[in-house]
Amino acid sequence: MDELKKAAARAAVERIADGSVVGLGTGTTLAYVLQELGAKAQRGDMRITGVATSYQARFLAKEYGIPVCDPMDVNFVDIAIDGADEVDPQGRVIKGAGAAHVTEKLVAALAKRFIVVVDESKLVERLGERCPVPIEAIAPALAFVQKRIREMGGDPVIRTGKGKIGPVISDLGNPILDARFDRIDDPAALSQRLDSIPGLVGHGLFIGMADQAIVARPPEEQPVVEVLEFRRG
Amino acid sequence: MDELKKAAARAAVERIADGSVVGLGTGTTLAYVLQELGAKAQRGDMRITGVATSYQARFLAKEYGIPVCDPMDVNFVDIAIDGADEVDPQGRVIKGAGAAHVTEKLVAALAKRFIVVVDESKLVERLGERCPVPIEAIAPALAFVQKRIREMGGDPVIRTGKGKIGPVISDLGNPILDARFDRIDDPAALSQRLDSIPGLVGHGLFIGMADQAIVARPPEEQPVVEVLEFRRG
Repeated sequence: MDELKKAAARAAVERIADGSVVGLGTGTTLAYVLQELGAKAQRGDMRITGVATSYQARFLAKEYGIPVCDPMDVNFVDIAIDGADEVDPQGRVIKGAGAAHVTEKLVAALAKRFIVVVDESKLVERLGERCPVPIEAIAPALAFVQKRIREMGGDPVIRTGKGKIGPVISDLGNPILDARFDRIDDPAALSQRLDSIPGLVGHGLFIGMADQAIVARPPEEQPVVEVLEFRRG
Repeated sequence: MDELKKAAARAAVERIADGSVVGLGTGTTLAYVLQELGAKAQRGDMRITGVATSYQARFLAKEYGIPVCDPMDVNFVDIAIDGADEVDPQGRVIKGAGAAHVTEKLVAALAKRFIVVVDESKLVERLGERCPVPIEAIAPALAFVQKRIREMGGDPVIRTGKGKIGPVISDLGNPILDARFDRIDDPAALSQRLDSIPGLVGHGLFIGMADQAIVARPPEEQPVVEVLEFRRG
């Protein structure tokens, strides 16, 4: 699996032009992207400015010697590279397994081009097939947001993790819900309904945002990298 | 002006049934509501549980001896009382001059009845006539949210205040924008467009939420209190 992620990461880095402002996503695949970018930067092959979507991205960029800044420090991003939990045939995406989807969506929205980098296990026919929709909410709204999601047919669970007792808290300081839906027939409509819930900070449905998916397929030893093109907006 | 606010506050408190779970709003008018509620609680005339929309509400409730909790601690609110910056003839409201509109909207949404308490200077023919729309956003998204609001015809300004250098930070830890719009022809559509902006936590348009406005009119010495009824939803 790691070989697939590395192959996809290399293919993504090849698409980054020298001098670009690059959105740096979060996750295991992105760690490979950052490593590859760092190696190029160290060899002097590429000068880029990274825009971090999370503490992970900032810390890895620093470690690998990639100049990095906060989204508030740029007016635009040339190309944003990020992973995904699910990608459907229209290029609609679920993100947020890493609890960084709110800033990831901001950086994707700032980007002229948004590329998702995945191995083929993330391709689905229908969003929600395997993954819940991650949702960040202000703590006082947690129970209310859960109630509203249940009214929409979802089954929301407060995410817990390791390293602390109680709910996982995002880099932005808020708890995370994972909302499983039996069928998501209309992801754009669900996105809009979720956006309207008071106290909900952001959700992991990325609709009409991805320009491309870079998909790595087995065999592990010699991965095949395929590029899917989507229409944005 | 204070006499008008006090008169409206007294009229609001008269509408609260003994034993209710009461949403406690934020602002100068609400300070009078809390004082009045506290006096009743102290006399043993009324036992209520308050649900705070802000630190101000929590601290005043404690000061006046009103039992108070966080919105996460209740499943519903019987009646929420709050001020407003503008109220239009359909009962649509702009709130957020006190930077508490995200939690205020949550508590209003939790409430079976939501009552706004104002003096008549807050009544407008069209929302946005006098007040900008307050917007809370995560700090990394501030510039991006401003750009999107400009594309919608708004003029967003980062709110500054007193007591600290730089932007005002809400009780939830985020900066606040004030977005002035020349004309808000369709407040519901604007609300939905604002909700869809990545990084925007919440805005001050309350559409279809208010059941009643309690409005105090001059003369100051003998204010006239009027009740406006709205259709919710």
